[in-house]
Amino acid sequence: MRSSVLFYSTYTLCVCLGLLCVLFVSCWSSHWGGGFAWDYSALQFNWHPVLMVSGLVVVYGNAAVVYRLPFTWKQNKRTWKLVHAGLMLLGLLLSVLGLCAVFDYHKGANIPNLYSLHSWVGICTVAVFGFQWILGLAGFLLPCSPPWFRSALKPVHVWLGISILILSLISCISGITEKLLFTLNGSSVEPYSSLPVQAKFANSLGLLLVAFGLVVFGILANNKWQRPETDTERVQLLHIDDNTRNDGCT
Amino acid sequence: MRSSVLFYSTYTLCVCLGLLCVLFVSCWSSHWGGGFAWDYSALQFNWHPVLMVSGLVVVYGNAAVVYRLPFTWKQNKRTWKLVHAGLMLLGLLLSVLGLCAVFDYHKGANIPNLYSLHSWVGICTVAVFGFQWILGLAGFLLPCSPPWFRSALKPVHVWLGISILILSLISCISGITEKLLFTLNGSSVEPYSSLPVQAKFANSLGLLLVAFGLVVFGILANNKWQRPETDTERVQLLHIDDNTRNDGCT
Repeated sequence: MRSSVLFYSTYTLCVCLGLLCVLFVSCWSSHWGGGFAWDYSALQFNWHPVLMVSGLVVVYGNAAVVYRLPFTWKQNKRTWKLVHAGLMLLGLLLSVLGLCAVFDYHKGANIPNLYSLHSWVGICTVAVFGFQWILGLAGFLLPCSPPWFRSALKPVHVWLGISILILSLISCISGITEKLLFTLNGSSVEPYSSLPVQAKFANSLGLLLVAFGLVVFGILANNKWQRPETDTERVQLLHIDDNTRNDGCT
Repeated sequence: MRSSVLFYSTYTLCVCLGLLCVLFVSCWSSHWGGGFAWDYSALQFNWHPVLMVSGLVVVYGNAAVVYRLPFTWKQNKRTWKLVHAGLMLLGLLLSVLGLCAVFDYHKGANIPNLYSLHSWVGICTVAVFGFQWILGLAGFLLPCSPPWFRSALKPVHVWLGISILILSLISCISGITEKLLFTLNGSSVEPYSSLPVQAKFANSLGLLLVAFGLVVFGILANNKWQRPETDTERVQLLHIDDNTRNDGCT
């Protein structure tokens, strides 16, 4: 009971931080960036931080912890696999749309693509995310996937899943840094070092993103909050273990 | 046996990537930064990336995986606790020295401290690192530490440990981004967007750091590579569990 109360408190914190991140990044882009458009202008760029923060961090983080919700444990796992995959697909699509926004803006303003460290890490993040989604679909959702493949894929899926969230956080924080330096140090009225309101606001967005990421890791790292394996899954794993042992002996 | 071979291959990769990170950051600071000094000049700043990458990422990451080395499992755990704590202290001291380097440089060049998102995340990282070290000393090394405190502290210690490495990676990548934008976009000869050799080199350093971090997470996330608990520890934990259950019933 105490563990459940602690879980739901942490989960509520996770959802609130996620919503705050989306609110902050939308306010930053609309208030200081001048709003949104899809016309190759700087207003199209403004979709980039909003879509990346929403898709790559907030939707992704929430999709990652969906199996930890205790009320789902008595329900069919396949349903929640579909929810997990669906949310991940939503996150991936938002991220790809976010990339289109920045590539279009660069095209319109004649700025080279993919030169900064932020863009190198960012493009790797979305590429690994896409790869992980396809691998997850093949391994855990397609009925023809053999049990030995699922079993071998699981630790890789978990490690890649954590890696993508770390890469997403790194991409977002380096992106905010880059954007603030371009915007504030481009105009000499209020440089970044004088810490104007925009800088304080965007720095706070960065801290909120980091806090959200660490809470997600907190939920994932706690073994007590893992969905218990069903008897069928346990038998299946034991069967695979036995076969592996026998293969090793022959 | 196969697990052990896979572990040592991954561990070798981890050590090689760590050494490459230190090599790359040292070359960047000496070749493009002009070398090192401790005289409030830009040459003192050059110690900052070298010390932060070495202390906060490479030494920290190696200290985090020290318990995973199979040859240590038959040896006294207290010895390896001291190695773990000693390496962590070395990492912490290097990081604090790295902070001194940048604060001194800012003082000499009359640049404000702690205005950027990089500096906000960076200072939080070192503060949490210091807090974690003191908490770890109190909980796991002082003989007077009560077993219930150790048991309660362990998951917090693990979560904070992972969090610090994530924060370190974010700090380093945003720091490299900041430094490149200041250096390359300050002089108009070779802007960052033209991707000169220095930019390619420092971007590669960023990717190496990320790769090192993800390999460390890979080692930590694999349950098969965890140091097995001794019988004494298992009995102690069971005893604590029983007490907790009894406390919950009364």
